[in-house]
Amino acid sequence: MGGLVMKVWGFLEKAWNLAVAEPRKVIHCAKVGLALSIVSLFYYIRPLYDNFGGNAMWAVMTVVVVFEYTVGATLSKCINRAAGTLLAGALGVGIYWVADQSGDELKPIVLGVSVFFFASAATFSRFIPLVKARFDYGAMIFILTFSLVSVSGYRMVELLKLAQDRLSTIAIGASLCILVTMLFCPIWAGCELHRLIHQNMEKLVDSLDGCVAHYFKDSGNLTISEENLNKKIQGYKCVLNSKATEESMCNFARWEPTHGRFNFGHPWKQYLKIGASLRRCAYCIETLNSCVGSEIEAPPCIRKHLSDKCLKVGSYSTNVLKELAITILNMKKSSKIELIVAEMNFAVQELRDALKSLPSHLLAPPSSTGEESTEGRSVPIKKADVLPPIMKALPLITVVSLLEEIAARIGG
Amino acid sequence: MGGLVMKVWGFLEKAWNLAVAEPRKVIHCAKVGLALSIVSLFYYIRPLYDNFGGNAMWAVMTVVVVFEYTVGATLSKCINRAAGTLLAGALGVGIYWVADQSGDELKPIVLGVSVFFFASAATFSRFIPLVKARFDYGAMIFILTFSLVSVSGYRMVELLKLAQDRLSTIAIGASLCILVTMLFCPIWAGCELHRLIHQNMEKLVDSLDGCVAHYFKDSGNLTISEENLNKKIQGYKCVLNSKATEESMCNFARWEPTHGRFNFGHPWKQYLKIGASLRRCAYCIETLNSCVGSEIEAPPCIRKHLSDKCLKVGSYSTNVLKELAITILNMKKSSKIELIVAEMNFAVQELRDALKSLPSHLLAPPSSTGEESTEGRSVPIKKADVLPPIMKALPLITVVSLLEEIAARIGG
Repeated sequence: MGGLVMKVWGFLEKAWNLAVAEPRKVIHCAKVGLALSIVSLFYYIRPLYDNFGGNAMWAVMTVVVVFEYTVGATLSKCINRAAGTLLAGALGVGIYWVADQSGDELKPIVLGVSVFFFASAATFSRFIPLVKARFDYGAMIFILTFSLVSVSGYRMVELLKLAQDRLSTIAIGASLCILVTMLFCPIWAGCELHRLIHQNMEKLVDSLDGCVAHYFKDSGNLTISEENLNKKIQGYKCVLNSKATEESMCNFARWEPTHGRFNFGHPWKQYLKIGASLRRCAYCIETLNSCVGSEIEAPPCIRKHLSDKCLKVGSYSTNVLKELAITILNMKKSSKIELIVAEMNFAVQELRDALKSLPSHLLAPPSSTGEESTEGRSVPIKKADVLPPIMKALPLITVVSLLEEIAARIGG
Repeated sequence: MGGLVMKVWGFLEKAWNLAVAEPRKVIHCAKVGLALSIVSLFYYIRPLYDNFGGNAMWAVMTVVVVFEYTVGATLSKCINRAAGTLLAGALGVGIYWVADQSGDELKPIVLGVSVFFFASAATFSRFIPLVKARFDYGAMIFILTFSLVSVSGYRMVELLKLAQDRLSTIAIGASLCILVTMLFCPIWAGCELHRLIHQNMEKLVDSLDGCVAHYFKDSGNLTISEENLNKKIQGYKCVLNSKATEESMCNFARWEPTHGRFNFGHPWKQYLKIGASLRRCAYCIETLNSCVGSEIEAPPCIRKHLSDKCLKVGSYSTNVLKELAITILNMKKSSKIELIVAEMNFAVQELRDALKSLPSHLLAPPSSTGEESTEGRSVPIKKADVLPPIMKALPLITVVSLLEEIAARIGG
C-alpha cells in the first residue's frame, strides 16, 4: 500500500517537473479544455441542439481527435478529416445509388463487396510512404466514413440529410479547433523545428567543446566540474535521435500559414538537410567520445606536442558551429562565416603538419626500443584527436554550403 | 494532362512494387476488409440491428480505428479503448449524478468545469513519456467518452442504457478485430522485432565486409561489381534509423500472448539493448565509411604491410556478427561464440603489433624526407582501418554479453 502511494507520488512529482519545465504544454492542455467547453455549448443551447440533434456529437469528436500540439498538425488533421469525409461521403452515396439500382437481391452483395474493396485499397495506401507521411489520417477517415455511409444507408432513407449534418458539424468542430489553436498562444511547428535545429547545434558545440576539454583536462584549461562536463558531452545523444521529430515537424510546418518571420513557402526541406548534417557530426562526436573514453593513454610528450593544435582545431570547429547557430537564429547570411571556416581549415592543416613532424621529433631521443613503443602507443592519441576534427570538417563544410543556400533564400 | 497520367501511373507502379515486395501488407489489407464486411452484418441482419440500433455504428468505428498491422498493436489499442471507455463512462455518469444533485442552475457550470478539468488533465498525461508510450490512445478515448457522456447526459435520461449499448458494441467490434487478426495469418510484433534485429545484424555484416573490401579492392579479392558493393555498404543506414520502430515493436510485443517460440514474459527489453549496441556499431561503420571514402591515399608499402591484418580483423569481426545473427535466429547460446570472439581479439592484437612495428619497418629505407612524408600520409590509413575495428570490438563484446544473457534466459 505504502509502495503504491510512493509510486503515485513519484509519478505526480515527475508530471509536475514536466509542467514546470515546459509551461507551453500546460497551455496546450488548457486550450484543449477550452475548445471542448465551447463545443459543449451545442448541447446546452437549445436552438443549436434542435438543428443538429444527435449529430452534434460529431463536433465533440472532431475537437477531441483533431486538436494537436502544434498549429500545423491541427491544420493537417482538419484538412485530412474534411477531405476524407467529403470524398468518402460522395463515393458512399454513389455506391449506394448503384446498389439501389441493382435490385434488392444484389444490394447487400454490392455494398459488402464495395466496402471490402475500398477499405482494403485505402488501408494499402497507408503503407505508401508519401501517403503515410501526409495523408495517413485522411485515409483512415475515408475508410470510416465510407463504411458508415454505405452500411447505414441500407437502413436510412435520409442519407443525404445525414451526410450534410455530419459534414457541417465536422466543419464547426474543425474551425473551432483552428480558431482556438491559432488565437491563444499558438505553437507553430515551423518555430519548433527552427528552435530544435538551433538547440541541436548548440548541443553539438557543447559536446565537442566538452570532449576536447575532457581529453586535455590536465592541461589546466578546465574550469567546470566533472559532472557538468559529462552532462555537456552527452548532449550529442539528443541530436542522434531527433530525425523522426524533425521530419514530422517539417511535414506539419508546410501546412502553416505565414507567421512571424516564416512565410508560407519557407524552404522547410532545407532544415531536414541541416538536421542530417548535424546528425553526421553527431556520429563523429560519438566515435570521438568513445576514443577519448578509452583507457589507453598516450605518452605525455606526444600529448604535449599535439594538444595545442588539437585544442585549436576544436575551438575553431566550435566557432564555426556557433556562428552557424547564430546564422540560423537570425536567418541572415553571416559575413564572418567564410573567414571562420578558413581559420578552421588552416588549423586542421597545422595539425596535419604537426603530425607529419611527429616521427622525426620523436626520433631525436637515442633509445631505440623506447621510441618504438612510444610510436606504437601514439596511435591512440592520433586516432582520438586528429581523425575526428578532419572528418568533422567535411560535414561542417556541407552545413556551411547548405546554410549559405538557405540564407540566400530566406532573405540574407 | 499527360503529366498527370504519368504521375498517377508512376504512383500505381510504386504501389504495385510495394505489394510485390511485402505480400503480408496486402494480406493485412484483406483482413481489414474482411473485418469490416463482417461487422456490416450488424446492419444487414435485422434481429441484431433491432437490438443495438444506431449504436451498431460504434462497432464499425471500433474496427476501423483499432485494427492495426500487428497483433500486439491491435490488442494494445483494444485494451486501451475498452479501459478508456469504461473509466470515462463511470466517471461521466458519476459527474452527471453530482451535477444533477446540485440543481438546475449549477448543473451546466459543474458539467462545463468538469469537462475542462478532466480533458486538460488527460491531455497533459499524454505528454508523460510512460503514458505516451503505452496509454496514449487510451487517454484520447477517455477524453472523447467523458465529453460525450457528460455532455449528452444533459439531454438524455437513458444515460445508462446508452453507456451499456456503446460498451457492448465496442466489445463486439474489438473482439471481432482480435479474432480476425489472430486467426488469419497473424503478424506478431514480437516476430517482427526479432526479424528486424536479425536483419540489422546481417546488414551490418554486409556493410563492414563491403567497407573493408572496398578499401583494399586492388588487392584482388573483389568478386562483385562496384554497384552491388555500394548497395551493400549503405546497409548500415537502415540500422541508424530503426530506433523508433524497435521501441514501438517492443511496446506492442509485450501485449502479445504466447506464440511460436515466444512466451508471454519474453525479455523484449533485451532486444532494445541489442538494437542500441547495433546502432553504436553502425555509428562506427559510418565513420569508417567516410574515412574509406576520403581521397587521401596511403602509400602502397604501408597498405601492403597492413592490408592482410586489416582484412583479417574485418573478417573475424564479421564472423562474430554472423555467429551472433545465427544465435539470435536460433535463440540458442552458440558454443562457438567465445572462440570466435577470442579469435577476433587476437586479430586486433596482431594488427596493433603490426602498427607498432610499422615505424621501424619504414625507417629501413635511407631517404629521410621521403620516409617522413610517408609517415605523415600513413595516418589516414591507420585511422581508416585500425581505429574502427578496435572500437567496434567494444560494442560487439557488449552485444555478446547481452546475447549470452538472452540465450541463457530463453532456453539455451
